Amino acid sequence: MTIAEQMQTLAVAAQQASRRMATLSTTAKNELLVKMAATLQEHRDFLQQENNKDLQRAKSSGMAAAMLDRLTLTDDRIDAMADGLREVAALPDPVGEVTGMWLRPNGIQVGRQRIPLGVIGIIYESRPNVTADAAGLCLKSGNAVILRGGSEALASNQAIGSLLQQCLVELDLPQAALQVVTTSDRHAVTELLKLEEHIDLIIPRGGEGLIRFVAENSRIPVIKHYKGVCHLYVDAEADTTMAERICMNAKVQRPGVCNAMETLLVHRAIAPIFVPQIVAAMRQAGVEVRGCEAAQGLVADLIPATEADWYEEYLDLTLALRVVADFDQAREHIETYGSLHTEVIVTNNYQCAQRFLREINSSVVMVNASSRFSDGNQLGLGAEIGISTTKLHSFGPMGLEDLTTRKFVVLGDGQVRS
Amino acid sequence: MTIAEQMQTLAVAAQQASRRMATLSTTAKNELLVKMAATLQEHRDFLQQENNKDLQRAKSSGMAAAMLDRLTLTDDRIDAMADGLREVAALPDPVGEVTGMWLRPNGIQVGRQRIPLGVIGIIYESRPNVTADAAGLCLKSGNAVILRGGSEALASNQAIGSLLQQCLVELDLPQAALQVVTTSDRHAVTELLKLEEHIDLIIPRGGEGLIRFVAENSRIPVIKHYKGVCHLYVDAEADTTMAERICMNAKVQRPGVCNAMETLLVHRAIAPIFVPQIVAAMRQAGVEVRGCEAAQGLVADLIPATEADWYEEYLDLTLALRVVADFDQAREHIETYGSLHTEVIVTNNYQCAQRFLREINSSVVMVNASSRFSDGNQLGLGAEIGISTTKLHSFGPMGLEDLTTRKFVVLGDGQVRS
Repeated sequence: MTIAEQMQTLAVAAQQASRRMATLSTTAKNELLVKMAATLQEHRDFLQQENNKDLQRAKSSGMAAAMLDRLTLTDDRIDAMADGLREVAALPDPVGEVTGMWLRPNGIQVGRQRIPLGVIGIIYESRPNVTADAAGLCLKSGNAVILRGGSEALASNQAIGSLLQQCLVELDLPQAALQVVTTSDRHAVTELLKLEEHIDLIIPRGGEGLIRFVAENSRIPVIKHYKGVCHLYVDAEADTTMAERICMNAKVQRPGVCNAMETLLVHRAIAPIFVPQIVAAMRQAGVEVRGCEAAQGLVADLIPATEADWYEEYLDLTLALRVVADFDQAREHIETYGSLHTEVIVTNNYQCAQRFLREINSSVVMVNASSRFSDGNQLGLGAEIGISTTKLHSFGPMGLEDLTTRKFVVLGDGQVRS
Repeated sequence: MTIAEQMQTLAVAAQQASRRMATLSTTAKNELLVKMAATLQEHRDFLQQENNKDLQRAKSSGMAAAMLDRLTLTDDRIDAMADGLREVAALPDPVGEVTGMWLRPNGIQVGRQRIPLGVIGIIYESRPNVTADAAGLCLKSGNAVILRGGSEALASNQAIGSLLQQCLVELDLPQAALQVVTTSDRHAVTELLKLEEHIDLIIPRGGEGLIRFVAENSRIPVIKHYKGVCHLYVDAEADTTMAERICMNAKVQRPGVCNAMETLLVHRAIAPIFVPQIVAAMRQAGVEVRGCEAAQGLVADLIPATEADWYEEYLDLTLALRVVADFDQAREHIETYGSLHTEVIVTNNYQCAQRFLREINSSVVMVNASSRFSDGNQLGLGAEIGISTTKLHSFGPMGLEDLTTRKFVVLGDGQVRS
């Protein structure tokens, strides 16, 4: 079989399996996930032995230490995969929900009912734990899933996939509800992305390069997670102690992730007090601060920020700092340079808080809280399948509900249209 | 300016305007729509004079009578556009809605709030009334809109667009919130479809050729409305009088539309009674019935149905008829040949009704009602911007709410992540 034929066969089998998965009871799906968790832990040795094959290959090809670390299936990570599956099993099932039905004048009853999307393709990079995490969320929401990890993790992903498939078979569920693409040929991805008749959604998880490649080559809808250039705006009426605490958390608690603050905007009325205070605290925490001209006037030897800094997702201990004239200038800055991910205002002023919530059109807008809360788990969605920075289907962190859609159900007693 | 530059300029202006539109009050948006309605009626002569230019051009190029009719702006159609705008003004505004907020253990409050999508591009064919209808829905839901109609209706669309724009200006709203593409160059569409940075959604309205062209050339998400091969399944325990009434309505009340029945499936237990009855009624109404072998055994001189008939969207007084062994065979038939649009079961059996609602994954599933109810207006969404036959973002008839998305709003009092 050619790669194209292999992908077609796999996608058709997934679609067939998805019909069965869509009608499973919540109890049956939970039983599946709990069994998967136990199976991963029971076969720890097998997983680590297969993972070692990937690690040996990676080492001999000279992979960097940080990448090697991400690839390694430690005992803790296997437990974390299993715990993740159990947590998803414990979440409420969105499938079947009808939030309300309405009666039309002719007596038909109409409602919108949540149903699974069908078949979801996940395309990801080195971490093998995504195989179990993504599978758990897709299966719990009644979908079939096709998993395509990085070639460097092929043996690990296949090992996890085969254990999870075994659980499907033992529970008399269709094996094709979960499939791992086992060829490392890059064409497999481009072929998958053409199968719009059989796959309903593609979720790429990885760097911006991967996401752009998938978005440009896919005929299937894609959830895009581009940059997280998150802003924090300290308003004139902010409590400076609270503002410092939130800024430090947003910048340094975990700087390498998409919901860390990248640019700090400070109202000019509070800048003379707050800018020296926050720059000192940031420097103490090892953060390099790059400031606008006005900020440079407030702090000696501040590194000048250039236009490019306002666009930057540093993912590091670097911060861009700008003093703004007022609320409108802060809003315009965010509109111009932002990435629609997460923005925070720190203020005690009711009107400013309300305006910020209303006028900023990013996927998550916050008052007086750290941008680091911008993830599915922290926001209360349970686990997270990804974050969408474009507006279609879902916007922001995505949980189980975001892996479903709604159909109309109509209950009549013989009505016809006149 | 090249076509590409023109489209870029237009899209950037639309995006800028969309930010203002997103924050308008419902009252301001309603005032705009009501003013637009009055303006169209006041400038009836101007509209018809411009429409005449299109009609003259179309006649001299030999356009068919049916197409000419669709292109004509009669008095009634101008009034219908105005009434449509007033009806949309009267609908509830989805923007700003937060259906609930939840409290996280750390005390932050989290909710999901409806916001406009941003900029919507509508690409449509000959009917100029779409210009006003689509504009009304997009503006009421707080979006900016770019309208690209068929070149045969260019003067009419420009006339409608200029009147509607004038209303924006008079109310001190951004003119670029509504723009009509005024070049008839076909490249304008392909250039628009590349502007994913500025346009959030494309809705094509027209034949399958237009929709496939747009879907294949767009980097922007597209709402696809492919075929409507709607099925009606008459179960063993159906009331045959009700079944006949619903079948006749679904087939003949307006056969040329996507929610008309195309294939009738009849359970074999009821077929000996119902098949002769419904074929006689259909024939009396001028419908050509094409039947499977079993149906041919029940009615003399029935035209044999071929495999191709099961895939057909006739949009005409033609019906495919199949006798099925049981519920499962009906379901399999719909899965194999259906288009995910609308399916109906006629039954008095509770279990069969429940199974049909649960197991059929089309965008609209009905019990004991005509498939002709499958449109936004009939289902109670108010007006309809289109019907989606794919599952992402929206599935089925789309109203105002489907032109919005949701962002997360988070209210804290200083929380940071530990």
